Parts: sequence; C-alpha cells; structure tokens
Amino acid sequence: MSPTAALISASFCRRVLEQSYFLHRYHRRRLHSVIEYPLTHPIYTIWASNTSLGKTLVSAGLSMSFLSSSSAPFPRKRFVYVKPIQTGFPDDSDSRFVYRKFSEFFTYKPLPFSVFASNSVLKASSPAANAVLRNGMAGGSLRTEAFGVEVVEKGGNFGGGLENVHWYEERKLRGSESNETELFPASQIVCKTMYAWKEAVSPHLAAEREEAMVGDSEVLHMLKRCLENGLIGASCNTEEMEVMCVIETAGGVASPGPSGSLQCDLYRPFRLPAILVGDGRLGGISGTISAYESLKLRGYDVAAVIFEDHGLVNEVPLLSYFRNRVPVFVLPSIPTDMSDDLMSWFDKSQMIFTSLKEIMLSDFQKRMQRLHDMPKKACDIFWWPFTQHKLVPEEKVTVIDSRCGENFAVHKSCNRISQQFDACASWWTQGPDDNLQIELARDMGYTAARYGHVMFPENVYEPALELAEILLEGVGKGWASRVYFSDNGSTAVEIALKMAFRKFLSDNKVLLDLVNADVNGKRMDLKVLALRGSYHGDTLGAMEAQAPSPYTGFLQQPWYRGRGHFLDPPTVSMSDDIWKVALPQKMQSGKSGHECLSFSSRDEIFKRSRDGSDLASLYASFVLQELLSLSDSNGISHIGALIIEPVIQGAGGMQMIDPLYQRILVRECKYRKIPVIFDEVFTGFWRLGTESAAEMLYCQPDIACFAKLMTGGIIPLAVTLASDAVFEAFTGDSKLKALLHGHSYSAHAMGCAAAVKSVKWFKDSNTNMNLISESRSLQELWDAALVSQISLLPAVHRVVALGTLCAIELLAEGLNAGYASMYASSLLKNLREDGIYMRPLGNVIYMMCGPCTSPDICRTLLGKVYDRIQEFGLQKDESAVFAA
Amino acid sequence: MSPTAALISASFCRRVLEQSYFLHRYHRRRLHSVIEYPLTHPIYTIWASNTSLGKTLVSAGLSMSFLSSSSAPFPRKRFVYVKPIQTGFPDDSDSRFVYRKFSEFFTYKPLPFSVFASNSVLKASSPAANAVLRNGMAGGSLRTEAFGVEVVEKGGNFGGGLENVHWYEERKLRGSESNETELFPASQIVCKTMYAWKEAVSPHLAAEREEAMVGDSEVLHMLKRCLENGLIGASCNTEEMEVMCVIETAGGVASPGPSGSLQCDLYRPFRLPAILVGDGRLGGISGTISAYESLKLRGYDVAAVIFEDHGLVNEVPLLSYFRNRVPVFVLPSIPTDMSDDLMSWFDKSQMIFTSLKEIMLSDFQKRMQRLHDMPKKACDIFWWPFTQHKLVPEEKVTVIDSRCGENFAVHKSCNRISQQFDACASWWTQGPDDNLQIELARDMGYTAARYGHVMFPENVYEPALELAEILLEGVGKGWASRVYFSDNGSTAVEIALKMAFRKFLSDNKVLLDLVNADVNGKRMDLKVLALRGSYHGDTLGAMEAQAPSPYTGFLQQPWYRGRGHFLDPPTVSMSDDIWKVALPQKMQSGKSGHECLSFSSRDEIFKRSRDGSDLASLYASFVLQELLSLSDSNGISHIGALIIEPVIQGAGGMQMIDPLYQRILVRECKYRKIPVIFDEVFTGFWRLGTESAAEMLYCQPDIACFAKLMTGGIIPLAVTLASDAVFEAFTGDSKLKALLHGHSYSAHAMGCAAAVKSVKWFKDSNTNMNLISESRSLQELWDAALVSQISLLPAVHRVVALGTLCAIELLAEGLNAGYASMYASSLLKNLREDGIYMRPLGNVIYMMCGPCTSPDICRTLLGKVYDRIQEFGLQKDESAVFAA
Repeated sequence: MSPTAALISASFCRRVLEQSYFLHRYHRRRLHSVIEYPLTHPIYTIWASNTSLGKTLVSAGLSMSFLSSSSAPFPRKRFVYVKPIQTGFPDDSDSRFVYRKFSEFFTYKPLPFSVFASNSVLKASSPAANAVLRNGMAGGSLRTEAFGVEVVEKGGNFGGGLENVHWYEERKLRGSESNETELFPASQIVCKTMYAWKEAVSPHLAAEREEAMVGDSEVLHMLKRCLENGLIGASCNTEEMEVMCVIETAGGVASPGPSGSLQCDLYRPFRLPAILVGDGRLGGISGTISAYESLKLRGYDVAAVIFEDHGLVNEVPLLSYFRNRVPVFVLPSIPTDMSDDLMSWFDKSQMIFTSLKEIMLSDFQKRMQRLHDMPKKACDIFWWPFTQHKLVPEEKVTVIDSRCGENFAVHKSCNRISQQFDACASWWTQGPDDNLQIELARDMGYTAARYGHVMFPENVYEPALELAEILLEGVGKGWASRVYFSDNGSTAVEIALKMAFRKFLSDNKVLLDLVNADVNGKRMDLKVLALRGSYHGDTLGAMEAQAPSPYTGFLQQPWYRGRGHFLDPPTVSMSDDIWKVALPQKMQSGKSGHECLSFSSRDEIFKRSRDGSDLASLYASFVLQELLSLSDSNGISHIGALIIEPVIQGAGGMQMIDPLYQRILVRECKYRKIPVIFDEVFTGFWRLGTESAAEMLYCQPDIACFAKLMTGGIIPLAVTLASDAVFEAFTGDSKLKALLHGHSYSAHAMGCAAAVKSVKWFKDSNTNMNLISESRSLQELWDAALVSQISLLPAVHRVVALGTLCAIELLAEGLNAGYASMYASSLLKNLREDGIYMRPLGNVIYMMCGPCTSPDICRTLLGKVYDRIQEFGLQKDESAVFAA
Repeated sequence: MSPTAALISASFCRRVLEQSYFLHRYHRRRLHSVIEYPLTHPIYTIWASNTSLGKTLVSAGLSMSFLSSSSAPFPRKRFVYVKPIQTGFPDDSDSRFVYRKFSEFFTYKPLPFSVFASNSVLKASSPAANAVLRNGMAGGSLRTEAFGVEVVEKGGNFGGGLENVHWYEERKLRGSESNETELFPASQIVCKTMYAWKEAVSPHLAAEREEAMVGDSEVLHMLKRCLENGLIGASCNTEEMEVMCVIETAGGVASPGPSGSLQCDLYRPFRLPAILVGDGRLGGISGTISAYESLKLRGYDVAAVIFEDHGLVNEVPLLSYFRNRVPVFVLPSIPTDMSDDLMSWFDKSQMIFTSLKEIMLSDFQKRMQRLHDMPKKACDIFWWPFTQHKLVPEEKVTVIDSRCGENFAVHKSCNRISQQFDACASWWTQGPDDNLQIELARDMGYTAARYGHVMFPENVYEPALELAEILLEGVGKGWASRVYFSDNGSTAVEIALKMAFRKFLSDNKVLLDLVNADVNGKRMDLKVLALRGSYHGDTLGAMEAQAPSPYTGFLQQPWYRGRGHFLDPPTVSMSDDIWKVALPQKMQSGKSGHECLSFSSRDEIFKRSRDGSDLASLYASFVLQELLSLSDSNGISHIGALIIEPVIQGAGGMQMIDPLYQRILVRECKYRKIPVIFDEVFTGFWRLGTESAAEMLYCQPDIACFAKLMTGGIIPLAVTLASDAVFEAFTGDSKLKALLHGHSYSAHAMGCAAAVKSVKWFKDSNTNMNLISESRSLQELWDAALVSQISLLPAVHRVVALGTLCAIELLAEGLNAGYASMYASSLLKNLREDGIYMRPLGNVIYMMCGPCTSPDICRTLLGKVYDRIQEFGLQKDESAVFAA
C-alpha cells in the first residue's frame, strides 16, 4: 500500500466501505435453510483472541488426549476435526497439521490399539487448487515403513473459481498391542478442510483477490453436512463409538470470514460451545478478556480458556475476572525452534489437554442432561399465561436453546438442535434479523453499562430523549407532542384512558363542574366506545374497554363489568381469491343493495375514494345513530373516549376491520370532541406494512399506544403519545392535577435504547431491504399467488395478508371454532416438523415475519403452509368420511 | 516460571485467585468521594486493543497537531497529557516521550509562536524512584542552545513504597516569529505521569512485586486533581485558552491496573470519551473489534479508531462493522529502525492527526451542546409520570449522563460532570454496585444475543427456568410452588388478585355454584381486605385494592371505586430516639392501658414473643371484629383476598406497620380461607434487610408479588408466586379455566437473566459483603447513633431505618404535609449540592442504598443529611420568627 493511499479520510473510507459492502452483500445474506446438528456427541468450536496463538496445537493436543484415553464402554473412538476456512493453503493446512502431528505422536508414544487417520480438503480457490496439483502435499516427514502407514492421494475436480478438490490422504496406524487379525480400524481421526485459499491473508481478502467467493449460507450448509457425517456418518456405526468433534476457526474471534461477515457472526446460527485460546503474553490479559466478551456478545458459551505460558501469570487476573466460572488452563511454553517436532511438548502438555478434554466432556453431559430435564421441570414449576397446564404434557413443551434473527433453535427429543421459524413472532413482538439482534445485544450491553436504570421524572438522559424525538418525528408526526412511557400495551392503554377521560371532562365544562361539586364524583358513568372483538390488555382498566369475551368472565376477573359501548364492525378478508366486506347483522338490514362489498385488489380497500361510496353513507348513518342514541340516553352516562385497533384486531382473531368504517368512526368522534385512542400496540412499527397503521386510515388520533415491535421485540417498553391539547388538560398549579400514574422502570434506558436502534433500523433502507422508500411502506412479503391459492383451499375460511402478517382462518364449526379450540393442533404439529413454530388463536393460524425478513423466506414458509393445509383438509375429509 | 508450575489445574488456579483476590481486594473497593470533572474543554482517553500499538505516538501526534493549529479566538493553547499508570519506568516514560517528541518536532518544524513544555512524575515505587536518582532522566538528545531550552530537574521525596517523587522538567521553546519582548509562554504542553513502577510488566504485577500498591479510589482522586489542574488550573487563565487533554492508558483496554481492576473498569466512573488505537496487522481486525466491544460493554463512547497501516486494508471490514458510525483513521507505517527520530513520520502523519483532532473537538462540541439543550427539550416533549410539568422549570431538570453503581453522573449547569448518590434508588429499584452493573451489562449483551426475546407459554428456556428455580428455593421457599411472570408490580398484583379470587371461589363451593348458575355473575361483590395507606400500582385492578388517596380521585381515573375493605393499621417508628407504636384512633379507645407501646430497640419489635402480649390480644380482637362484621353483613359482598405490603408501606409514606399486627391479620385470614397476598414489590430482595420481608413477619402468604430489586433494578420484570393450592384452582379440562392473563414479554430472557444474576449476587457472601450469613440478613447499614441523633432533631417527626432504607418524616402541618407538599424542596436542593440525589414523598424524605452498599458510604451520606436537616430546621425557625 502506498503512503498516499494510507492517508485515508473518513469520506474515502466510506467509499471503500460501500464498494466492499455491495461486493460481499449477497454472500452475507442468509437464505432459509434449516440449520441443525446432532447432540449425540460433543462438538466444540476453537476460537482464539488473535492469530498464531496455537489453536491448532490445542486441536492436535485434544485429538491425542481424546483418542489415547480408552474407557471401558467405548473402546473405539472417533475424533473429528473440521477447519471450515483455511488461507495460505497449501503451505498452511491446519487439518493436515493435526493429522500429521497425531500420526507423529502415535509413533512417539504408540497407543495399544490401532487408529485410522485421514485428512481431506473439500473445496479450494483455483490458485490454491493449482498449487496442490503442482507441488502436491505428500512431502511429510513421517517415516512410513515403521508403523505401516499408507499414503493415499486422490486428485479432484480442479479449475477456476472455488472448485471441488476432494483431496484426500489417509494412514493406518497400527497399535502396539494390536495383532494382524485385529479388525481394522479400531479408532479414527478424521480431519477436514472445507474451503481453502492460497494467499495467507484474511479470508475476505483472499476470497476477493482469488475471485473465489463463498456465501455464508453455503459455509453453514457445508458445516452442517460435515457435522452430520462426522458424528453419525454412515461409514461406521457411531452409536458404539465415543465421538468428539472440534471446529477450528481462522484468526481471531472477530476476524472476517470469506464473505466479510465476522466469524463470530457467521457461525452464530449453530451457537456451538466454545474453547477460547487466549494470549499469555504481555497485553494478553486484555486481548483474552476482550475476545471472551465478543463471544459472549454473540450468545456463545465459553467452556474453557487455554493459553501458552509466557511467565506472566496471566491466569491470575483472568480467573479473577471470570470469578471462577470459566476454567483457565496454561500450556507450557512452545518451542520456538522451527525444527522442533513438538513431540516432547505435546507429551508434557498431555495432562493439560486431558483436563481440558474432561471439562469439555462433562460440560457436554451437563448440557444434555439439562436439555433433557427442562420440559419436566417447566411443567412442574412454571405457570404459563393463557395455558391450561392439564393440556400440556411434558412432550408438548418446546425447549428453546436460543434464537438467531427470526429463528428459534429448539432441542428436539431425538437429540438434535434444530431451527424453527418463529412464525408467531413471539407474541407479535419480533422484528430483528440476525444482524439487528447482534447490534441490539451490543447496545443492550452498552446501555446497561452506561445507565443501568435511572429514574425518569424531572430527569433527562439520552436514550429517553432520543426515542421521544424519534417517535414524535415518526409515528406521532403531525399530531403528537408528548411521550408518556410505561411497560406494556396494557399499561399504555390504562394511561391512554386516563388521558382521554380527563381531556373529555376538561372539554365539557358542565361535567367537570359536576365532578368538582360532587366530591367522590362516582355518580357519573364515563364509558368508552370500542369495537367488539378488540383487545387492549389484561389489566383491569384495559379489560374494561373490551367487550365480554373468554378473557373477561367472572372466574377470570370478578371485577370486570365492561365499561364500554361496543359496536359491531364490518370486517374485510379474502375468501376464494376475492377480497370482500362482511357487514354486521345490524347493517345488513339497513343496506340499500347498491353498496359494493367486494374489491378487485387489497389496495382498493384502502383507497380514500371510497369516502364517497354508498357504503360510506351506510357506515356514517349507523355510526351517527349509535352516537346519538348514547348521548341523549341519560345525564349520567357519557362516552368519554373512543379506542380502536386500527385496521387489524389482533387477539380478537386477526380480523381486518374495514378501514373506511374506522375512518368514519374517528371523524364522527372527533367532531363530537370524544378523544380518539389508537391502540397500535400490535399494529405499530411496520407490523401491517407501514410504520403506523394510522397511515392506512388517513386519520390521526388524539392519543396512541405503542409497544411490542417498538423495541425490536427484545425488551419491554410501551409509550402513550398524546397531543398538546390532551397534555394541557393535566397542567395546573397542583401536583394533584398531574397524571399520577407511573411504573418503576418508566422510560428505562435499555428499553429506550433498543427502541431507538430498532425504529431507526426498520425505517432505513440501508438496513431494511424491504422498504419501498417512495411510498413509506414495505414491499409485499407474502407471495400474492400463494395467498390466493391458500384462500381457495376447501379447509380455509378466510385469509388476511397485510404487511408482516398472513392470517388464515380454518373452516370450523361449533367447538372447533373460537378461542379455546384445539382444532388446528395436528396441523401445527406437522408445521413444527417443517421448521415453522406457530401458535394459533383457536381456529385462526397465522404467520408473522419481521419488517426486514426477506420475501424469499416468506415464500418458502408459505409454500410449506399451503402443503400442510391441503394435507390437513384431506385428512379432515377422510375422517369425516370415516365418521359418516 | 518452571514447567511444573505451568501445569496449572483449575483447583490450583482457584487458590492462586483467592490469594490474589484478597491481596488486592481492599484496593479495588471504592470509597465514597465525589468524582467530577470540568466540561470546559475536551478530555479524551486513549485506549488500545493491545500493547505496543502506538498509543503514545497518537498522543504525541495529537499534541503537535493541536498546538500547531492556531485559530483566531484562541491564540494561546494548552495540551495536557496524563499518563496515570506507567511501568518499566524510567526506561519507559510515555509522558517524557510525548514531551520530548513534541520538543523535537518543534525544532524540526518550528511554530511561529513559543511553547512552554513540561513533564513531571508525581509518584513512583521505590525501585523506580531510586533508578531515577541513580541514572537521572535528563539524557535527551535535544540541542538546548538552538532554541532556548532550559532543562530543570527537581528531586523529590524518595524512599520505600509508593513515594512522592515530584520529578519535574521543563523547556521553553521559542517560536520562529516570537521576539524577545513576547510575553512568555505563549502556549503550553503539560505532560504528567501519575504513578510509575520499575518493572516492565502489567501494573498489577509491578505493584505487587515492588510492594507499591495504590487503590482504585486513590488513582481516581489523583486523576480528578490532574484534570482540574490541567483544565482550569490556577497557574494560568484557561478561560482565554483552548485546552485539550488526553489520558493515556497502559496496555490494552482490559489490562489490569495496579489494584488488579481492569483499566476499563477502573476509569469507568469518569466515562470519558475514548480514542481506540487499533491493530493494522493480520488478526488486528478481530483485536480491534473486540477491544471496541469491551469499551462499549462498560458504557464508553468511542469517538474514533486509529491504527498503523500494515498493508492489509483492515479499515474496510472495520468500517463495515461500524456501519460508518465511528470514523477510522489509518496512519503510515511506523519506521522500525530504532535510530529513526520519527520526525518525518510525524510530519507525514499530521494530516491524519489533524483529522482525528477535529473529530475530537467537534464531538466534544456536540456533546456539550446536547447536554446544554437536553433540559429544554425534555420539558418540551416528555410527559413525566407523577409530575406537574408547570412546577418543573428547565433549570430544575437533572441531566443524567450515566450511572456507575449507586451513583448518577449528572451534568451541572456550571459545565461539570459530577456524581450524585442515587438515594431514591431510582424508584426503589436499584441494587447494583459498580461491579454488579458491569457483570449485568455483559449478561444483558449475552442474553440479548442468545435469546433476544422468545415467547413463553408451553416453552422453556434456561433463564426463565433458572430464575423460577431460584425463586422457589429463595423467597418462595416453604410455600410457593409456581411462578407467574409479568412486567411490573402493578401487573403482578392484578394477577395475584385474579389468583386469589379464583382460589377463594373454588374453596367456597356455594359461591362457586352461584357464579356458575348466574351467567354473568355480576351480582356477587368480591372485595379485598387491605390496609389504609398501602399502594399496589396504578393499573385499575391494583388501584381498586387501595383505599382512596390522591392517586385515585375521579379526575385521575373515573372508574376507580375502591373495591376493598380498608383497615387502619398501627404503625411503628422512632421519635426522639425511642421506637414506639402508634395505634389508630379506633384501637386507642379499646386499649386497656397495659399494652406496651414503646421498645428498647428495633429488634424488640420483631420478636415472636410479642405474640403473647396484651397488644397482641388487642390486635386480635380488633381484626376478629372487622372480619365478623364483614362476613355476615349480606350474602352478596365477600372478602375474597387479603393484600398487604409486609412491614413497610412504601408509596404511602414509608410507614412501618407493626409486624405483630400483620402477623395476626394473616393468621386470622388464613384461618378463614381468605387467600393472603404479600405485595413484596418494594420490600422484596433485601430492601428491608432480609431477602423476603415475610421472614420478619414469621408467616407465609398464599401468593406473593416481586419486582423492582429482583432484576438488580436494571430491567423490568415481575413475578407472582403461588402455592400449589392456588394453582390447582385453575386446572381443568378447558383452556377457559386457565388464567387468561399475559403480557408480550412474559418471562423475557433478559429480565430473567438479570434476575438470576442479581438474586444470586445479593445472597452470596463473596459478592455481598453486607451479608451476615448466619442470620440470613444484612448488617446494619445506617449508623445507629446518627439515626438516633436525627430522630432527636426538632425538624424531624419520625425516622424509620431498616435494611437499605432510612426514611425521615419532617415535622410539617397543613399544606406542608402530605403527598403534594413541596415542603422539603430547599432541603433536597442543598443535598443535591452535597452529591445526594433524593426525591421526597411529600414531607417524607428517604435514603435508599443497595444491598451491597458499604456502611461507610451510608455513614458519610447520613452525616450530610444530618447536617442539612439541622440547617433546614434552623432556617424554618428563623422564617417562623420573621413571620411572627
């Protein structure tokens, strides 16, 4: 690099970055393929805090220690070593080093039984592949005759780009006590390099310079295959074998992989337990701790730290830092003489490697045991919400080992860790892809370290202020001027109601005077206007704003009265490939017959031009009639607020309400000075394809509630936004006039920081590829043709696909319909087998992705759902035939 | 180190650790002294991802670039360089290097104006000090005559241990355009080494080996002084000067300081913005990213990354990782020839250093501006809970820059960042000391990365399960068998009430049949038995369980009715140095005169032997009378639950209820099968000195609510624990019989992980020094003599000191008493000046520390409070005199 090029200004860097970012972008993107691996035997990843700290020595040492210990039930063993990414090849080949050093050590200290050793390279860049062809790799220093080694070399499919190499070598190492008749081979060491490049630089550079790129998905897929083959390969019966597998990374924990993704991010979907090779030199304490923290910041568990001794007693501060939770091992100094064959060093180090290996085995056993025990323990001590425990036997419990972006990693009873797409978006909260999740994790660490939690009233701190600014410029733009923080949707609604009632009273001088005159004021009955089927939360105040439902019975909460006037709204959905309005009973009798009740497309439904339609007149007259009938009924009962979930009612069964109706309702309430509350807890932040669902209604509330997706679904936080007029109803000279409602963690810094990051992430087209920036909305995520096909299936009653939501109501009657129905359970069980985790609302099933989820993934998922519903319909038909 | 010693097993390491831990423990502990620094000029800390990456070159380069740029309003400039920790001294002295290189560069490229340069060393270990004496440090290569340099050396106070050295050198560098008459000096470079050790090893080793330890508090205190002197030193009028200060750390970001504390932890109370010197070598991307993450995990802001070019284009992946949020600078390769004087390298690098300096200055300006603007913005767009905005002018708003353990770092209008002890424990949530806060930060990053949030019902994942296990073995031990998760105290109480009512109904077959017969069942009126003055939350269900109060008026929530029967409880407090019971009106008439109403000590109040006292009989008869009067009043109204805050009522004014009374009340309710709820949201997790306040009552509830301190006060999470009998009331064949209450983030992983860490931390005597392990309680945190003295002050009505709480009710009458009173405001204003942040409950003020806060700190704080209350009383007296 020339000195002038070294003088990189920030703007130059930006250019460099952009080039590089776009270059590698495709390769970083993960496709939807189910990541899974067997838990039959331990698999560890070997990481290091820097290059050249001896990862490969540790791998080799572990192979020797593992294969030499022979415990009674497993006389035969197999050690699998995988090097996914190798640069500097073939001069450097870590898999070959392990293979060779093991073989040499076998000569140096023969084992009583025989071992079959192999090493292979799967793919290489052209320069690397050509170098192998030209120079070969056989020139080892092992004397072959002494213990019956055979070297086999097979050429591969050489050529340009990243090529299949299939380069392979093997040796049979005869044991000191084995005889000619012994069944060969006794034990095995299998070494593999997945991808190799020639230049000894960082993989992302080598891949670029040698024009041999490989995508993250491909690396993961290949690794998955290697693990399957290594652990339960068909070539031998591993059930009788004790197997151990190590995967050795390249460079340091955060060194880039071939696509440019950091390796700690690249391998994250597997989240394998880690061994960290630390640094025993001066400055090594810091490097080791920082590398450990980078692994933790990606959700890895570190089983042990090991490093070479340099006489600086680095283990003391390290153990102090770890508070004894992570064992630290110190290896003897490594001979610096290049001609040293390291045999005596390996010999000297065996005790350490054996201790390390034992930690690895026992940690694995503990993990297995815990995963196995968790369902029973959960059934014994948890009290799950909305769950009849009697209906959840142990085997129905899902053990979630981790999540990565949109996917759970679940433990299956067949002893596998397997991905399932979180299609219920964990109660509609989830938005992060795997990139955002890691960014949020770092932000959460930072914010906890910077603020922990600090109290809010009369104070200001950056995350709360920044979030308030962003919200008022975003979902509150044009109407909101104040942000009230709380913990969840339910509290946000309780606060909204308190705000609305006060506003209503202060707008109605006569009533306010009545209240002030009547000390306890209890004679007045303020009601809320709401839609039947809406849901606003489970605390009493929020419950009271809902019509009676399974959630509100006397046995659930004897204090519930239903303090609302509840309207039956018209709904919209697609049935048999056509979007239609379904009018409530009452309106059906009032309609003239001119109203158009079906639409050529979903977009038609949202058009403002509908305001002039016959249906609009019908809606308006019904709304007016209801409002008039309420306002003059008596002098005690008043409508003090309107609350609606704009566009979609979530918990009520994913019902889409005709937006025209909601717009007319809001207009009429505003006209009558009834404060309007939008409950956007479910609908907000791109859930339905726009940042706020209010945008789809073309009208603005006085008060709005947000939660769920606001924090990216990572941490609880809710806000109630209010207009200035609402805020003013609480200003006065006394504290008693203030809104006296709060929660301990009001505007807690971590929640606010998560929201700042997420809200920005979702609306930035650099991070959210789904944004159609001109129209401030998401591109269509659910394949329109597939949605239509699903709506045509006989088992399907209706479909609503909008934004990140695709809801499907199954045709069901009687006990099979409604909230408590178990109708869909067999369907959902099958879908879990397909890697899709759903949770139904009775006979309504739905898929929900994040605002950034790629439409490709959605298409794949929806295809599986289509297949399973079709199958489900056929089964139902069959069982109907049998029943008849 | 011998090879055998290198073979360190985990158990050996543990021993080593313990030795070392105890050795350094004292030095790690921070005492209470207010950390603060001026924000008049920029101060940055220079960190590096490893040793020997050129931190000092960057410092020197910055000094040259800063002093050579002369902008119009500030012709005179001052560059302050501080090296707090130097090992390898005097051979290595970074402050001397900066001093010398600047001077050399001045010769190489003279500035037009003159510069006064100085370098000093404040303290050194004996070996280091002796080496200076023996060899001197003057042997520089500068030719003094050429530009009028004078070298001044002053000997210091040499001797054993860590000694005052006061070694000092200075030079006057005459500018090329300066003349003899110029007022000397024009600009300044001030270089300082705070502490020096001789051996070139990690500071913790050098300090130990040279028997020259220095505590963390001392380092911080010295640094504070250096910053004060450097930035607003009396020696010159810095107001007319542009000043820049850099503090250069030793080794990598997580290298240990002299006490063994990692430097990133050591300097955390200042939380100065950082410049990270990264690594341009192979593997350097990883090291740089990891170091950056370690800084972020301690709440530092990194303004820029800079590193030496090694031709590997490391800036590209770094910028990609940073997503352009942090600028990255690349320095030309540093000459490896030891004889090179680096002058041409510095010259070549000036452009880079100038860009870096400009980023540092503009970031500082932005930070200042933002801190300045925050109060106004907050007043404009926040809606604070429990706050009458009209009473909070901009100047009353506290800008919280960060928190560290128990302390806020607040921005004061006099342009300082200053510590205030968070004596309201941020609404009673806070528990972490600075160690726990950093551990929690790492755990939060890990948990977010591993799980984000995953949904709870029918699932199990480690943090939720582990927390449930810990709770049932801890606060729920002996009675609870199920854990129900929610978001905050208010929701936990709503859930508890739902549980209790169901339990009550299923225990009362007759009532249950009535409910089942009467479809909507609304004719039955279930009430809750509660104590007047109690507080359970602000959602409607929780409000209904509270007696009417300022929180519950019609204008606050028109739906509030007060669905309870509210008893007046007897309270206990210390007045005039005596603990006394205050009986409610009703009981006073019923008492026989034999009851003992005062106690020789606080412990007496909690003795079980009081069960046989006359007072116990009085309480029992009153409770019985109330219960009987309620149960036979009519067939519609029933008491379905008892809810109490055990021992202390928080929001009600920090009232201590006679524990004997609560015990009798619980006993009578249990006898009548009225389910008992303990609201331990405030009292739980050591707030009152025991893990659960129930322990102090010697009785167990059927249901209990916890939140606040459970997560260490870092993140919202609540639980409702229940006995098996309560759980069984919800089992059945239908989902509709289940408890249908939930929140999006039920049992969210981050909350559970924070709680697991905190609950364990508080009850482990290795991490919580305040534990008296035999008695499962905290040692006395508030100095008993001081508490007595405060109770004797004329301005004080009563005092309650218990566990982490010390509440003081000021003597006040009329409008000065009660929740809305502003009576204490002048007192609290003065206490903030003393570094204590309090928030009153009307005329009740209180201090609250964490379960691990050292009694020394509490004593210091309480002393300040004593002084201020005394002063406050005198002022009140005076004003009374004037008024009279």
